[in-house]
Amino acid sequence: MTDQRPFYRLTPEKRRERLAQQANLSKEQLDCLQKQSSRFGNELVENYVTDYRLPMGVVTGLMVNNKTYTVPMVTEEPSVIAAANNGAKRVRLSGGFHAEKQEHQVIGQVIISPVKDSAKCIRWLAQHTAEMIKVANAVRPSLVKRGGGAWKIEVRPLPDYLSVDIYIDVQEAMGANSVNTMAEAVGQYLINEGFPVLTAILSNLYLGSLQKVSCLVQTDYLKTAAMSGLQVAKRIASLSKLAQVDVLRAATHNKGIMNGIDAAVIASGNDWRSVEASAHAYAAYGHPYHGLATWQLTKQGLRGELTLPVSLGVVGGSIKLSQQSKINYQISGIRTSAELAAVVLSIGLAQNLAALRALATTGIQAGHMQLQYRSLAVSVGANADEVDKVVDALKPMDQVDQAAAKKVLQKIRRE
Amino acid sequence: MTDQRPFYRLTPEKRRERLAQQANLSKEQLDCLQKQSSRFGNELVENYVTDYRLPMGVVTGLMVNNKTYTVPMVTEEPSVIAAANNGAKRVRLSGGFHAEKQEHQVIGQVIISPVKDSAKCIRWLAQHTAEMIKVANAVRPSLVKRGGGAWKIEVRPLPDYLSVDIYIDVQEAMGANSVNTMAEAVGQYLINEGFPVLTAILSNLYLGSLQKVSCLVQTDYLKTAAMSGLQVAKRIASLSKLAQVDVLRAATHNKGIMNGIDAAVIASGNDWRSVEASAHAYAAYGHPYHGLATWQLTKQGLRGELTLPVSLGVVGGSIKLSQQSKINYQISGIRTSAELAAVVLSIGLAQNLAALRALATTGIQAGHMQLQYRSLAVSVGANADEVDKVVDALKPMDQVDQAAAKKVLQKIRRE
Repeated sequence: MTDQRPFYRLTPEKRRERLAQQANLSKEQLDCLQKQSSRFGNELVENYVTDYRLPMGVVTGLMVNNKTYTVPMVTEEPSVIAAANNGAKRVRLSGGFHAEKQEHQVIGQVIISPVKDSAKCIRWLAQHTAEMIKVANAVRPSLVKRGGGAWKIEVRPLPDYLSVDIYIDVQEAMGANSVNTMAEAVGQYLINEGFPVLTAILSNLYLGSLQKVSCLVQTDYLKTAAMSGLQVAKRIASLSKLAQVDVLRAATHNKGIMNGIDAAVIASGNDWRSVEASAHAYAAYGHPYHGLATWQLTKQGLRGELTLPVSLGVVGGSIKLSQQSKINYQISGIRTSAELAAVVLSIGLAQNLAALRALATTGIQAGHMQLQYRSLAVSVGANADEVDKVVDALKPMDQVDQAAAKKVLQKIRRE
Repeated sequence: MTDQRPFYRLTPEKRRERLAQQANLSKEQLDCLQKQSSRFGNELVENYVTDYRLPMGVVTGLMVNNKTYTVPMVTEEPSVIAAANNGAKRVRLSGGFHAEKQEHQVIGQVIISPVKDSAKCIRWLAQHTAEMIKVANAVRPSLVKRGGGAWKIEVRPLPDYLSVDIYIDVQEAMGANSVNTMAEAVGQYLINEGFPVLTAILSNLYLGSLQKVSCLVQTDYLKTAAMSGLQVAKRIASLSKLAQVDVLRAATHNKGIMNGIDAAVIASGNDWRSVEASAHAYAAYGHPYHGLATWQLTKQGLRGELTLPVSLGVVGGSIKLSQQSKINYQISGIRTSAELAAVVLSIGLAQNLAALRALATTGIQAGHMQLQYRSLAVSVGANADEVDKVVDALKPMDQVDQAAAKKVLQKIRRE
């Protein structure tokens, strides 16, 4: 007899069994779900079934403000970590990344709507900013004690809405919990004062947390067998300019930057959707959507710059709840949210340098295919001695999939 | 004596040992890295160290085009999967999501720069589109055989550049490999014809792969103890309008949608940075950055819509290379890339509905904190009987962290 309870009320074990039954999973597949599961996962997410595994590697020798880091990166895409290391090395040889000190403020929004007498509302709100700051800070006294908290209120009129923007110094956390709690407190205060409050929540566009990193690459470290360093640098600068004027190119330019940033953000236990939303919305802030990192040829070398609004935490949320994320902080040695922001953006800029250099010279496909064919070879069971042979046999082929890799492997074994 | 080879040349085991030495990891931490590692990971990414685990749950009863799905979701954020289920249920009760059939084309760009005689170049290119399509398809005959391939070329003049846009039907793959290979072939052809080619690569803004999903929610399914369904629906529509006019709110509106989309995309083995870049760049395409999903109150109910350019694969890349991603396809029963796009976007719209409903009524913090405190309780060792007691004790506290949770747990155990 099957358990008739709704799915969410089952234990993880019973959930796996029900899925196995519904989806006709093999005994081996059910065992896989079982084996990868952890007791902790069930307390982190709803309808928990198992843990999903993503490969983790490291970028080594990433030099930021004269300190050298080894940083864990989590990604499913071959070539991302190789590219980060490649870019990091060229920048290190040129003196490393320079990161400015980040202010770390997150904006909470309280939305008033409908707005009847806008001018009167704005006047009242302007007269009560100190009161609202007090209300916000009253629900997070410990944040204030640590030197943070709400400190500025701006009232922004929008068509049919008023946004009360609360600027909150969130210190070492990403800030979502504190900011939402504080914004909701101000919202409740305004409801009590008779305002129609539509909602209260943080904004993921972290305009109060701009982080800037830059580097100056010696062109000599950019040369290839076929091109001088200066030629490569000029082409990289041209690709950078292209990403400023073409949205089709800008999306991919930025996607490449986020390849590196997300990988480091996940390994740090932070929320990558928050970083993605902030980065891409900023790419369209005040002008058409464009490339986030820029490269300019100067007399001193190729100058790269990346500025992003980003809020990362080293405490709070799901950070350091898992043993793995704790280990990752020990590997990187990162202690503060400002340091994390500086390192993560440096990885993004390193990633962009490596991608643009490949695009400006040999193209990216040769390297990509080599790496993807290796994964494919191993997935069909090739051992260390066989992998290279399988990859070489796959390279000239048109349609490469697991079936093709299997066939090639069988042929190699027969020979 | 320590191994002097560079990090990337070490075996994963030696890499873990070196990291343990450098970062002073405990025996237990080194064991953790070791235990979570897999042979396969080392072939997927560079400088591989171990596998990183993220919790995986499922959304159940997601109805899309009259078919009901159970879909794996991978996320670190508590409340995302609960919200997806919450939204999915309200929409299912109202008849489910409707997804239009997606065209699945990815654009490859070949960039010509510098451009000397623009008019002459454009004329020549216009006369050779058939030839370029032939060149592109020649390197992927199997794609053509399956009904796909390059079929249209557009030449787009940009300041100082010409973009040759190749429209490629990529069938069931995400398309990056095929499109890059085909674009590079056309690039080589143009170099041979004497054009200065700067680069050749796909665009991650998938304007050729728009997917639209919609739903019509009966307002009765939106009511709370304090508000009628109609009142809630009106407030959701107002929040939707706000996301069209305020970029601070739009970033968070879209971030919430991507909470659901990314979780399903990762579980399907696809590349989430590609989906993020396309979604957010599209949010700023042709107008200022704004909210992607919209909700309008109609006589028939609350009508939700989400249109995104998205390229997802059910074959190729790292999809189905891992046993886990294969199992996930068996659980969801998804067979085609069009079906995957429809389901993923439906999850995004369900996610948005649940988020806006919470924002329009009780706020999101109460639910969030409850879930986060549960994780915290378990992370300090609370057993099933103790979790709820720890959560209740933490709720009124200002500064909640592992130390506080530990103290509370000790107190409970003493009592």
